[in-house]
Amino acid sequence: MALLTGEEYIESLRKLKTRVYMFGEKIDNWVDHPMIRPSINCVAATYELAQDPMYEDLMTVTSNITGKKINRFAHLHQSTEDLKNKVKMQRLLGQKTASCFQRCVGMDAFNAVFSTTFETDEKYGTHYHDNFVKYLTYIQDNDLIVDGAMTDPKGDRGLSPSQQSDPDMYLHIVEKREDGIIVRGAKAHQTGSINSHEHLIMPTVAMAEADKSYAVSFAIQSDADGLFMIYGRQSCDTRKLEEDADIDLGNKKFGGQEALVVFDNVFIPNERIFLCEEYDFAGMMVERFAGYHRQSYGGCKVGVGDVVIGAAALAAEYNGAQKASHIKDKIIEMTHLNETLYCCGIACSTEGYKTKAGNYQIDLLLANVCKQNVTRFPYEIVRLAEDIGGGLMVTMPSEKDFKSDLEVGKSGETIGDICNKYFKSSPMATTEERMRILRFLENICLGSSAVGYRTESMHGAGSPQAQRIMISRQGNIESKKQLAKDIAGIKK
Amino acid sequence: MALLTGEEYIESLRKLKTRVYMFGEKIDNWVDHPMIRPSINCVAATYELAQDPMYEDLMTVTSNITGKKINRFAHLHQSTEDLKNKVKMQRLLGQKTASCFQRCVGMDAFNAVFSTTFETDEKYGTHYHDNFVKYLTYIQDNDLIVDGAMTDPKGDRGLSPSQQSDPDMYLHIVEKREDGIIVRGAKAHQTGSINSHEHLIMPTVAMAEADKSYAVSFAIQSDADGLFMIYGRQSCDTRKLEEDADIDLGNKKFGGQEALVVFDNVFIPNERIFLCEEYDFAGMMVERFAGYHRQSYGGCKVGVGDVVIGAAALAAEYNGAQKASHIKDKIIEMTHLNETLYCCGIACSTEGYKTKAGNYQIDLLLANVCKQNVTRFPYEIVRLAEDIGGGLMVTMPSEKDFKSDLEVGKSGETIGDICNKYFKSSPMATTEERMRILRFLENICLGSSAVGYRTESMHGAGSPQAQRIMISRQGNIESKKQLAKDIAGIKK
Amino acid sequence: MALLTGEEYIESLRKLKTRVYMFGEKIDNWVDHPMIRPSINCVAATYELAQDPMYEDLMTVTSNITGKKINRFAHLHQSTEDLKNKVKMQRLLGQKTASCFQRCVGMDAFNAVFSTTFETDEKYGTHYHDNFVKYLTYIQDNDLIVDGAMTDPKGDRGLSPSQQSDPDMYLHIVEKREDGIIVRGAKAHQTGSINSHEHLIMPTVAMAEADKSYAVSFAIQSDADGLFMIYGRQSCDTRKLEEDADIDLGNKKFGGQEALVVFDNVFIPNERIFLCEEYDFAGMMVERFAGYHRQSYGGCKVGVGDVVIGAAALAAEYNGAQKASHIKDKIIEMTHLNETLYCCGIACSTEGYKTKAGNYQIDLLLANVCKQNVTRFPYEIVRLAEDIGGGLMVTMPSEKDFKSDLEVGKSGETIGDICNKYFKSSPMATTEERMRILRFLENICLGSSAVGYRTESMHGAGSPQAQRIMISRQGNIESKKQLAKDIAGIKK
Amino acid sequence: MALLTGEEYIESLRKLKTRVYMFGEKIDNWVDHPMIRPSINCVAATYELAQDPMYEDLMTVTSNITGKKINRFAHLHQSTEDLKNKVKMQRLLGQKTASCFQRCVGMDAFNAVFSTTFETDEKYGTHYHDNFVKYLTYIQDNDLIVDGAMTDPKGDRGLSPSQQSDPDMYLHIVEKREDGIIVRGAKAHQTGSINSHEHLIMPTVAMAEADKSYAVSFAIQSDADGLFMIYGRQSCDTRKLEEDADIDLGNKKFGGQEALVVFDNVFIPNERIFLCEEYDFAGMMVERFAGYHRQSYGGCKVGVGDVVIGAAALAAEYNGAQKASHIKDKIIEMTHLNETLYCCGIACSTEGYKTKAGNYQIDLLLANVCKQNVTRFPYEIVRLAEDIGGGLMVTMPSEKDFKSDLEVGKSGETIGDICNKYFKSSPMATTEERMRILRFLENICLGSSAVGYRTESMHGAGSPQAQRIMISRQGNIESKKQLAKDIAGIKK
Repeated sequence: MALLTGEEYIESLRKLKTRVYMFGEKIDNWVDHPMIRPSINCVAATYELAQDPMYEDLMTVTSNITGKKINRFAHLHQSTEDLKNKVKMQRLLGQKTASCFQRCVGMDAFNAVFSTTFETDEKYGTHYHDNFVKYLTYIQDNDLIVDGAMTDPKGDRGLSPSQQSDPDMYLHIVEKREDGIIVRGAKAHQTGSINSHEHLIMPTVAMAEADKSYAVSFAIQSDADGLFMIYGRQSCDTRKLEEDADIDLGNKKFGGQEALVVFDNVFIPNERIFLCEEYDFAGMMVERFAGYHRQSYGGCKVGVGDVVIGAAALAAEYNGAQKASHIKDKIIEMTHLNETLYCCGIACSTEGYKTKAGNYQIDLLLANVCKQNVTRFPYEIVRLAEDIGGGLMVTMPSEKDFKSDLEVGKSGETIGDICNKYFKSSPMATTEERMRILRFLENICLGSSAVGYRTESMHGAGSPQAQRIMISRQGNIESKKQLAKDIAGIKK
Repeated sequence: MALLTGEEYIESLRKLKTRVYMFGEKIDNWVDHPMIRPSINCVAATYELAQDPMYEDLMTVTSNITGKKINRFAHLHQSTEDLKNKVKMQRLLGQKTASCFQRCVGMDAFNAVFSTTFETDEKYGTHYHDNFVKYLTYIQDNDLIVDGAMTDPKGDRGLSPSQQSDPDMYLHIVEKREDGIIVRGAKAHQTGSINSHEHLIMPTVAMAEADKSYAVSFAIQSDADGLFMIYGRQSCDTRKLEEDADIDLGNKKFGGQEALVVFDNVFIPNERIFLCEEYDFAGMMVERFAGYHRQSYGGCKVGVGDVVIGAAALAAEYNGAQKASHIKDKIIEMTHLNETLYCCGIACSTEGYKTKAGNYQIDLLLANVCKQNVTRFPYEIVRLAEDIGGGLMVTMPSEKDFKSDLEVGKSGETIGDICNKYFKSSPMATTEERMRILRFLENICLGSSAVGYRTESMHGAGSPQAQRIMISRQGNIESKKQLAKDIAGIKK
Repeated sequence: MALLTGEEYIESLRKLKTRVYMFGEKIDNWVDHPMIRPSINCVAATYELAQDPMYEDLMTVTSNITGKKINRFAHLHQSTEDLKNKVKMQRLLGQKTASCFQRCVGMDAFNAVFSTTFETDEKYGTHYHDNFVKYLTYIQDNDLIVDGAMTDPKGDRGLSPSQQSDPDMYLHIVEKREDGIIVRGAKAHQTGSINSHEHLIMPTVAMAEADKSYAVSFAIQSDADGLFMIYGRQSCDTRKLEEDADIDLGNKKFGGQEALVVFDNVFIPNERIFLCEEYDFAGMMVERFAGYHRQSYGGCKVGVGDVVIGAAALAAEYNGAQKASHIKDKIIEMTHLNETLYCCGIACSTEGYKTKAGNYQIDLLLANVCKQNVTRFPYEIVRLAEDIGGGLMVTMPSEKDFKSDLEVGKSGETIGDICNKYFKSSPMATTEERMRILRFLENICLGSSAVGYRTESMHGAGSPQAQRIMISRQGNIESKKQLAKDIAGIKK
Repeated sequence: MALLTGEEYIESLRKLKTRVYMFGEKIDNWVDHPMIRPSINCVAATYELAQDPMYEDLMTVTSNITGKKINRFAHLHQSTEDLKNKVKMQRLLGQKTASCFQRCVGMDAFNAVFSTTFETDEKYGTHYHDNFVKYLTYIQDNDLIVDGAMTDPKGDRGLSPSQQSDPDMYLHIVEKREDGIIVRGAKAHQTGSINSHEHLIMPTVAMAEADKSYAVSFAIQSDADGLFMIYGRQSCDTRKLEEDADIDLGNKKFGGQEALVVFDNVFIPNERIFLCEEYDFAGMMVERFAGYHRQSYGGCKVGVGDVVIGAAALAAEYNGAQKASHIKDKIIEMTHLNETLYCCGIACSTEGYKTKAGNYQIDLLLANVCKQNVTRFPYEIVRLAEDIGGGLMVTMPSEKDFKSDLEVGKSGETIGDICNKYFKSSPMATTEERMRILRFLENICLGSSAVGYRTESMHGAGSPQAQRIMISRQGNIESKKQLAKDIAGIKK
């Protein structure tokens, strides 16, 4: 089967009976729902760019399993070059969508589960790796989207999974049967769950023996019996429902999505199970997935940053301020910060290493450094963009005002006339163009895309403190102390 | 006449025939419009707190003009103590509303126009000061709200008012008559214009002779003939229109507002004119108003910051993370930054000086330093709040989901049951309480209140570069060079 | 007795038999020792400026005890105006010396001991307050310098004074006699101890009953039997010993000093004792002294900052780079940071309050915020100064090279000729002037003055974490939580 | 000829008659001069590590010219792997010396001159590339040190080379002869010039036709007729001259050096000339050298940072404070910042490209981003190290005090006893060990090594603004604007 087009991908979603709830109700045609569709368009872009000759080399690759041409998002990294190309592909997608395009969680899960199952089998004689390779072959052959799902609701943060008063606060095995298992629980904050054909589930923390029924990894189709999703609210989400919404959206075509994915006693057949009670491998799977995913942010958010920088530069032009030295300097600073993130994404890739299973893992210290910077710099980039954009970004009348024919002026001027008159600035742009770029910035700074560019940069792939703990562990302080002793002449 | 209650203030607005447009249409009952009312409630709070015995000492003062008890917002500062109390009053209001309460622009305009008219009259023998004192007496006696309006649309930033291709890009005199003048133009980004009984107009830049028809200051009632307003969009503004909206609003009662205020050939009677073509005093009025207003941010935003810090501390508790040392440290950092802003607000007040007219002006250098910090620290406070809040802040289902009775689970659980089950965390709070505090943070970080707490902190009272120019001018670098020469032994 | 002149102060030191050790040897004529003298000149400046009519109003004040005119450094603050004037006086001294002028520790100790003894007597019926008032009268009448000494060596940071393996790690009472006490121990990092006529000793931490022999405060003349000092090394200290040293010193006249002050069984007569085993008042004395001293840094370091800014501006001129927009912007940033510190110093002063004893105490929260900023901003100011100064600041040949007559060139050029030729830059300055300003910057950035401007800014009056603990305690988080609950609609 | 040992290198220097001046006098035995020797030891370390089997793989490489094993510092990069290994080698050297080891300027010059001469010859038919390859063969074969020298004194920054009032402010050709040229001028701030066998000279700015006599590149032995050096002063330089200096030095063995290198009508034979009046290639040579050298800082300063982090961690232990959460967090932050620099060094290497001449050039945008971060993060790392180190770092008595036998105590204690008693802290270290680590930190923060770790990080390889200009040029803002237009729906 050939790679799907974007359109084919969208049509394929229609065949799924995925249960989606929003605003307290069931959404039947969620594929065309205006609040959901932009996030589907983002995923579709991962298919479209793979078909585009200009990007084909970056977006597609030969499968090491089947030898067939596949989308890179379904690939097992075969080299550090592959790891770097992953980051470059993500930057490209960020540039084209200015959004979270949601397909990388699957890619990161594939690579983490592939290598962890190999080592689990090695110790326990299980057959999870075979299961997984067959599963991934199916995904590659059918060019499917998989939500790599890790984060549980977690309940009381001070308690382990098995200590929670409600046993479902972490997803767990409730029954083991001959042909499979029954699981129960939920995965929260799931980016792109609704758009995915499949879900690939992983545990969310390292575990001890008491937690072993929580040590479970498996795959399941998104419309399995007992599985449903409740859509999360975003800032400005309902602007997408406004009649003829266009300019006020800032980014009409693309957007992100998050949902709570609920597993209400879902059956998982044996051949789709990749970890089942081997609790000592939960931590490895978590750490490897988190490592890949922290690398990812050194690509995708850089791509979004490129658009933000471009938009700020345009806003300066459209405001007539592009020649001011402080404006130029702020653009430079935005570029500097954005490229620093890219350096981190690239560095943790090129310093990657081969796992026992044969695919490549990123450098863990540098990937955590990468993500830690991502919890800071996009915020400063946004602050600078708001500085350059000017106050109009948040005080501008609505698109409907700009287009209104209602006469309000003494000489018969309409609301639209008044808006277009008073919000005109530099001759380099029409008022509508100025409005478009300011609405884009509003969307990124405080609108629905701020969820992806800011809060997700903070908490996606682990909150800042999670990275600090890893940096502490990986920083090899003992060897650094020895270096200092050698120089300072301390002998012991 | 006694001071008004909050309710009396709201009723007084109903008597005005102020023209307001929004989403391309005229809003007749704007007093009760759900998108506008929260901003009216903020202004009402300035009346209510003045009636509250606990805050009366801070909120009210004896008028130096009439000897009557008046709201401090209508006061001419008689001492540096008054200047400090202004800042403290603003911090209080920020704490009580977590919003921009809009009444300080009037206070700042009163004080700037009072002293500038005195000096203008001194030079030109005009009677603007008398005009103004009578006007302010009327305002004090009737406890009215006045929008101090400065910012013009400005058109092409590289050109002066008189050089613009459209002469209306700065508000100007189009006709001088026996009994007054006709003005035309607009004031943009006007905070609280709709809620105000009156508008007090000032020029927005220093001017040369060619611009003299733009050198104009006057007062006018908000529903004057030819005056109308177009409401600005805010992030998440239409959430306020949602049925039974409560939790999802984050801050149900309070909010801010901005509008474009259009002067479509409006007649201003002579007794309401405070500057008319004396272009060499435009700069003084601008600088003094901007100075006061930059001081203001050292009070109001600190008050909002107090609420954000409290909310972040609650979020940490409700997430069960309050004991983590990194959380405690982030709360300390937020407090530190917030109190640094307060120091700046207080310092520029206590270092104020008496003007020729007799009221007190803030220290200009320190007020600009104050505002410059306000363009930075709230952004970092927000970043830390987002860090502490966690990703749930932006992925949580809607209030309607939490309250939905639709059965979706195999055991008959409703959407509401599922949401309440999986988003429960620490026993210190119910799921609803957790949701409430996260929605408050969402509102401040990226929702409608982010307009006030972030973008207004950036651009209100002048964009960052405006302060840097003033810091450069006021920094007295020549005397600092001399200090260095003295120490370094350079004789010349 | 009238106020002393600077010269009289210096002569008065010669009469003391203070024991001083340095480089393993006793320094007999320490008054004229080139490494010590600059720090004496700094103290002398506090006398000279008090005699200067231009600064007399700020530098002198009427004693509330004796009604006589005294140096403000010996004053008990009688109002918030006094607190502000203290900060302004310190800024002035910083501007004139670009160094730590060492006299404020005494002033801060006077005010802390005055109010603490009052409250101690109130509880215990002791007579420490009388003792202290008599002592201070003596100091004021004779215009003496007093080292307010707090910091003990502390030994193992994890143990309280009484738990240390060596009981002397905190200064303590070793014997109580009819006529006084014998004390033993040391005070470390003592700024200005050698230049002081007297030492006023305070405990360094809050204490429990077990530590009561460590709860001791007293005064003693600097050359008492058993008291001696070991001088601390500073960066570049021995440049001051170089023959004809001038330019290479950066700041020829002024500097700071630190020493270890050792109490080798020193007798303290009863009338000089201000605390003796009342351990529950140790914490109050510490907190009040630290509070005043954290305020101080909002004055003195701002004054030094003024000189650094001036020097950077001159360096830019002398390098021919003063018109570059990035240079101007860096000067603005330095000014902004420096004035932010000043705001904090002023704000914690004007928000001060009257103690039971009648003198004024600063606002504790804001004083800690002040000092916390001082642990950050001077470092950034220095970084910017190094940026503006250029690499020559650290690669320039020595003064001796610039003045050398040794012929080295083919046309008979001397080393001095070569240096003066190649290090000439803008026509605005001679090579020597350029050299002087760069050497001043070197001195402040990495030389002996960096000890005062950087490390002392970090650790003086308590290390950064000490302030954070106080900010946490004083931040009133509970009331902030209530504000957030009120806004978010959380009822409990 | 085999690779030299460190000792052989040092002996080889003795054979040179390099003229060195310091403190106004000629230094004959500069190889053993205590102020110079530490910088020679650094260079020697580049030989020693190449002999060490543990580091041989990193430190040596096969020459692409001769096929022989050479030191990597003399290598032409043949791949991006070589570029990364350069960075790793530099980090290693930084770790081993905590200093600038001075050999990279040569390496960076080799690679820049190699590729630029190729392209110059291509255009002009000159034979510079051949000249250079022969020269480099000689260097490789003899394992020599070459100072790649670029920075001229520059005189008035606002004027081009040919516009200066003194024509020597930029090094230039004063005479063209049959067999070569005579040059005159100087190179300032030259790191490692005295330790080098040879100098490889490059122009320092892009040039126009009027400047063509300044467009010159060549090599010359360090003791050529007319060539001499004047040594630069560093902070604390003369501590190295103190008798038995050890602990107070902080870093006894290693250090950096800078000098003014003067060309007093020096003859350069034709075969050593690599650019001669082809002014349009001056800019290329500058940009390529600067690019490599900005990459370098992502290695060497990271290595020094490793030692600083280790020293801070030890200081915390020796102070008994290692368990405090704020200390741990500061160590993490230092690590994070340091590894971010490393990411930049690695990323600009792995993203390098092949030049026309066949060697590899780094990615210019990312190398400038790298260096820009180096102008910031080491300063923050130092600030954190000073925070952790504590005030004792700058108030500690001298080594002579610690070792003094002079009796000063009542019980016969010596100065040494007193120092060792009162500066003892945690049982984890002796007082001397604590002193050693604090002196190391002093040396890095404000002593002679601060010149290398701070000021050189700021200005080496170009001052911050130089990088910002390159980031602006390389940032491709036009393409970013197009991305924003595409997303925002702006068609033009």
